[in-house]
Amino acid sequence: MTRGLFIGRFQPFHNGHLHVVKEILSENDEIIIGIGSAQDSFSLKNPLTAGERIEMIRDLAKEMGFLERVIIVPIPDIHENMVWPARVMELVPKFDRVYSGNELVLALFENFGVKTIRIKHVNRYIYQGSVIRNKIISGEDWKDLVPEKVYQFLKRVGFEERIKRLARNNGEVNK
Amino acid sequence: MTRGLFIGRFQPFHNGHLHVVKEILSENDEIIIGIGSAQDSFSLKNPLTAGERIEMIRDLAKEMGFLERVIIVPIPDIHENMVWPARVMELVPKFDRVYSGNELVLALFENFGVKTIRIKHVNRYIYQGSVIRNKIISGEDWKDLVPEKVYQFLKRVGFEERIKRLARNNGEVNK
Amino acid sequence: MTRGLFIGRFQPFHNGHLHVVKEILSENDEIIIGIGSAQDSFSLKNPLTAGERIEMIRDLAKEMGFLERVIIVPIPDIHENMVWPARVMELVPKFDRVYSGNELVLALFENFGVKTIRIKHVNRYIYQGSVIRNKIISGEDWKDLVPEKVYQFLKRVGFEERIKRLARNNGEVNK
Amino acid sequence: MTRGLFIGRFQPFHNGHLHVVKEILSENDEIIIGIGSAQDSFSLKNPLTAGERIEMIRDLAKEMGFLERVIIVPIPDIHENMVWPARVMELVPKFDRVYSGNELVLALFENFGVKTIRIKHVNRYIYQGSVIRNKIISGEDWKDLVPEKVYQFLKRVGFEERIKRLARNNGEVNK
Amino acid sequence: MTRGLFIGRFQPFHNGHLHVVKEILSENDEIIIGIGSAQDSFSLKNPLTAGERIEMIRDLAKEMGFLERVIIVPIPDIHENMVWPARVMELVPKFDRVYSGNELVLALFENFGVKTIRIKHVNRYIYQGSVIRNKIISGEDWKDLVPEKVYQFLKRVGFEERIKRLARNNGEVNK
Amino acid sequence: MTRGLFIGRFQPFHNGHLHVVKEILSENDEIIIGIGSAQDSFSLKNPLTAGERIEMIRDLAKEMGFLERVIIVPIPDIHENMVWPARVMELVPKFDRVYSGNELVLALFENFGVKTIRIKHVNRYIYQGSVIRNKIISGEDWKDLVPEKVYQFLKRVGFEERIKRLARNNGEVNK
Repeated sequence: MTRGLFIGRFQPFHNGHLHVVKEILSENDEIIIGIGSAQDSFSLKNPLTAGERIEMIRDLAKEMGFLERVIIVPIPDIHENMVWPARVMELVPKFDRVYSGNELVLALFENFGVKTIRIKHVNRYIYQGSVIRNKIISGEDWKDLVPEKVYQFLKRVGFEERIKRLARNNGEVNK
Repeated sequence: MTRGLFIGRFQPFHNGHLHVVKEILSENDEIIIGIGSAQDSFSLKNPLTAGERIEMIRDLAKEMGFLERVIIVPIPDIHENMVWPARVMELVPKFDRVYSGNELVLALFENFGVKTIRIKHVNRYIYQGSVIRNKIISGEDWKDLVPEKVYQFLKRVGFEERIKRLARNNGEVNK
Repeated sequence: MTRGLFIGRFQPFHNGHLHVVKEILSENDEIIIGIGSAQDSFSLKNPLTAGERIEMIRDLAKEMGFLERVIIVPIPDIHENMVWPARVMELVPKFDRVYSGNELVLALFENFGVKTIRIKHVNRYIYQGSVIRNKIISGEDWKDLVPEKVYQFLKRVGFEERIKRLARNNGEVNK
Repeated sequence: MTRGLFIGRFQPFHNGHLHVVKEILSENDEIIIGIGSAQDSFSLKNPLTAGERIEMIRDLAKEMGFLERVIIVPIPDIHENMVWPARVMELVPKFDRVYSGNELVLALFENFGVKTIRIKHVNRYIYQGSVIRNKIISGEDWKDLVPEKVYQFLKRVGFEERIKRLARNNGEVNK
Repeated sequence: MTRGLFIGRFQPFHNGHLHVVKEILSENDEIIIGIGSAQDSFSLKNPLTAGERIEMIRDLAKEMGFLERVIIVPIPDIHENMVWPARVMELVPKFDRVYSGNELVLALFENFGVKTIRIKHVNRYIYQGSVIRNKIISGEDWKDLVPEKVYQFLKRVGFEERIKRLARNNGEVNK
Repeated sequence: MTRGLFIGRFQPFHNGHLHVVKEILSENDEIIIGIGSAQDSFSLKNPLTAGERIEMIRDLAKEMGFLERVIIVPIPDIHENMVWPARVMELVPKFDRVYSGNELVLALFENFGVKTIRIKHVNRYIYQGSVIRNKIISGEDWKDLVPEKVYQFLKRVGFEERIKRLARNNGEVNK
């Protein structure tokens, strides 16, 4: 049995993420999805809470039939890079390899002797959380950038309204 | 659709926990299991990591056929009681009620207007994590206090050896 | 008896703040003034310490005759938005409503069922902390932007000198 | 104008505290009351929140006529002793001397060249927070150990019920 | 070139520590001494600051002629066991093996594939920090339990007086 | 005996730092070098770990013959400016004066009555960590900006490769 780990912020989960998840599922029995910056929410960078992000991904996994093969784990930031992979290893079940397109993530895990696989993001300039959030702020269409099931979830929790609202004060409690 | 939340440290998951989980599943569509003190591990009070605790509970859920109905979420301590329920609500998907036998947990959630249900622990003096850990230290039998599937998992990760080893220096890095 | 809560950083307390305070006092028996980012000081964004900010506001309240009706409470940041209102509720006496012009603050408190009142800042582009601090750095006049009593306090603690000095190394210990 | 600083946890504010406060007021123009362990509440050691403690002391100050002479400031713990006086000095307005009966507090402030005054607690074995809390748990009378106004406040917020409830699970979220 | 790592709290550095240091120096070119619980001081468990502990060990190293072969590094606690070895590896120069008599320390480093060497403490019940601190409190002789140079340092910084003073209020800011 | 304190991030240690170190050594018996932002590493601002920075400076000190006169201490950030000098004083041995070219550092230490000496950086626009790191990213020559011994160390640990790699994802775990 093998497990692949994939960490992202998923603000929101988009088609680029889906592409990677499918790839990992095709190469492993199970996938662990780590939800990064789990402590952050209601900010312009991280509008959704970790709980909402879990639900969004579970909804999709249920529809696509891989719910039993996915383990979703929120991972709070630690702001001490060298130590971050140890926190990840503490919070998630044992895994065989880390998939990432982020050189820092790859370097940090290599540092602890973990097997890493460099992924190529598809259409990186389109399928990107910040692109989607900016489209929402400027009132552009973004529906086709995320899976249909995710779009429904985001509509239900008022994702668009929340982002637009936060954008009015650039999302800081003490602006 | 309703969800019940149940938080514990699960060091390890025992028959008392199983009793509660079954009860919650009989009254709700889904159960959220919050893994408390998620940041702690390799200590006498919390020998297992959060990742191991996720795996232990998933193994059992898979065997008992409720894997699709359970959401397992590690919850790091915050040491600021008033604020703790807000952290829980941030990290887990929306839920309808909290089940707990701990008066502090009940009081804190009531404080935020969350619906709470007081549970009665069965055989509290036998089915208790600290009782099991102490039996292991003193070499007594503990197999019957946990579900068979959990026992197998604990054997596989060396739970007994870890506890006995930690007991030699009372589990502090700077003793 | 009713109480209104108003949170700001007050770097420094200016005429825009005064306008809001008067409004809240006209609608409530008491006002709680929460001093945000209380842990920060000697930075370009937060030159004054929380202690100095308490004193600045007390001086004014004494002069204007509302000292017995104001409760001033420093509130350290928590960098976990969902959890921040719980910390505020922990640190300040019970209140009936929150007054804010910040959409994030309003959203977070609404989330916990607290009554919120959206305030309109008067002359937002003039009465603003950052505007005042920048005027000081560039040597412009700023006296008329703050209450006379506040101006006297700021002169006494060397507010101008401190800001100008911090501006030389952009206010970071490890620049 | 002189100010004296007095720090305590005030769980609850009792006659011993009142004695000290009167002494400090007789020797200074103003008193700063620092509320220690401000982040803790709903625990057996700290049942009241910082906000409740502020209100309790204000009620008394109002009744006794020294409200305009008292500055009440919550002080969260830092768990780094050497650094704690610096945090206190950051959070409270300038003061002239610290009054304390705690040798550690005296030593730490002396370390930074602050003037300290060693106080003698009156009837230390009777007027003590833990004594009062234990009396409540064991159902003994405690009314005479606190000022009448404080007693009324504690009745109003359900102090006795909270302590008795917390005592049932020794006041830990993850017992 | 090889380096051995040895971590302790050194409250104070005693003959048992010296025995280990000599052993490590005989087997390695250099020794890294990690000062554990570096953030704690002025407490009954950790009376000396990290800075004082550095100086105490340097004084001895200078006298005994191994100053050029020792690297002394303060290591603040992290209260997240799995992550602690990563913090140690971040703070100290590369090393070849860890020497420890603490099973938890050994287990945590083994977890990351670091080579560990189990040491046997000599006269563990005599050469122990807590024994020395208790002897000081009860006024017993302790001079022979530490190297002469360390004793001189401790006399100079007032180690005995500090411990006796802290013992009067059991060393907590908010007792 | 006098000691001068000098704090920097040393990413990397360059000729400007060396100039200051020589000056301090000429005026004092010993120098304490505080390694700022010690908890950060593998970021674009702080590529080297604290451990590597210790080794880099020790290598140089050994070669230049002042190893016995230097005390190198990592200092983790605290993000609470008023409190930062207290943390420094806790972590390093007693010193007589602080040398700094940073107005904030000078102001904070003055605040606690510590003697400060304002240094003039030589060739500030050339000898600067960020300049060197940017030269590496853009493939320019930087060898002459650091001492030869430092250059050798940085080659050995792969400083250039690390920076170039981090630059590809701007060095954030959750970009």
